[in-house]
Amino acid sequence: MKKVDPQRHAERMAHKQKIMHERIAKADKEQGVLLVLTGPGKGKSSSGFGMLARALGHGMQVGVVQFIKGAFSTGEEAFFRQLPNVEYHVMGEGYTWDTQDRERDIQTAEAAWEVARRMLGDEHFDMVLLDELNIALRHGYLDLDRVLDDLQTRPAMQHAIVTGRHAPEALIELADTVTEMKVVKHAFKDQGVRAQKGVEL
Amino acid sequence: MKKVDPQRHAERMAHKQKIMHERIAKADKEQGVLLVLTGPGKGKSSSGFGMLARALGHGMQVGVVQFIKGAFSTGEEAFFRQLPNVEYHVMGEGYTWDTQDRERDIQTAEAAWEVARRMLGDEHFDMVLLDELNIALRHGYLDLDRVLDDLQTRPAMQHAIVTGRHAPEALIELADTVTEMKVVKHAFKDQGVRAQKGVEL
Repeated sequence: MKKVDPQRHAERMAHKQKIMHERIAKADKEQGVLLVLTGPGKGKSSSGFGMLARALGHGMQVGVVQFIKGAFSTGEEAFFRQLPNVEYHVMGEGYTWDTQDRERDIQTAEAAWEVARRMLGDEHFDMVLLDELNIALRHGYLDLDRVLDDLQTRPAMQHAIVTGRHAPEALIELADTVTEMKVVKHAFKDQGVRAQKGVEL
Repeated sequence: MKKVDPQRHAERMAHKQKIMHERIAKADKEQGVLLVLTGPGKGKSSSGFGMLARALGHGMQVGVVQFIKGAFSTGEEAFFRQLPNVEYHVMGEGYTWDTQDRERDIQTAEAAWEVARRMLGDEHFDMVLLDELNIALRHGYLDLDRVLDDLQTRPAMQHAIVTGRHAPEALIELADTVTEMKVVKHAFKDQGVRAQKGVEL
């Protein structure tokens, strides 16, 4: 275990506390935040669903649109769908490599966006999670300008969360907070471990 | 919108489906996974809590130990604590820059690890979330070898998730899946937006 002088530790922490308090005092804007969770690493959707849980813990009203439905039944759907204060839509029909039909994917994405758009226009929703929207944008299934307009004109206090690899540059520019998830290692790809219930599914 | 030839799209997706099916067939190990969510970006804890929700959606039993309690009441605690199949402990007494007392921080971390250790020794827990454990390790509040031993000897089918910045190298080596979260931008730091309920709290 590292040896640390208790007095120096207390001094360093007192200094850090001062900085943190100043930062909190300066950060005085209350507003809905647009968050983007992107990159190839694991944890984008689960992070979105964790924020959903957090919002529900504060008694907020939340909406979810899943743009790509996984091949398997997912734990998050089973869990959140049954709860009060949640409106949950799974609009995707599967991975693009399973449908293999671009026209059908476009129609599905458009229908999903109509649901998302209604939520983004309704201040009754405190948080809207647009899971895997970036995939639909990446494939050109939705018009990016329309999506950005609808995100930008949402109610001032509404949080919106967009997940999926390859977030478009213009969405990153519009967003307030953006995290890129980097793979350091991945059990499924690197070590032949199956996608595990509760973790990936 | 990008112009894509439907026939070429279908061919590419058929090829990708074949690769994905091969990868799934090869990945045939069922096992508990050790996940580490680290890096400075936003989404580490929320991702852990999202996996908790996923696991609960599959009817799993989960345990949570929060090693650092935030300064504010958190939405995730209010939300998960009330649910069945969840055992929830908040052991930390606040950020290290608030306590400013290294001896007390060490005692708190040791007590928290005793709870974590009991869960990691009990196959009744399908998933154990050790939120902000990396912070306690980073400050040397816990013996790293003991932590790694307890993680390694947990039940074979149990998932363990460790969050927090600065994951130690030896933990990354032991882990099955590791994601590093990179800040692209952050509303709180960059734009003076307060930490928002449902998003950060």
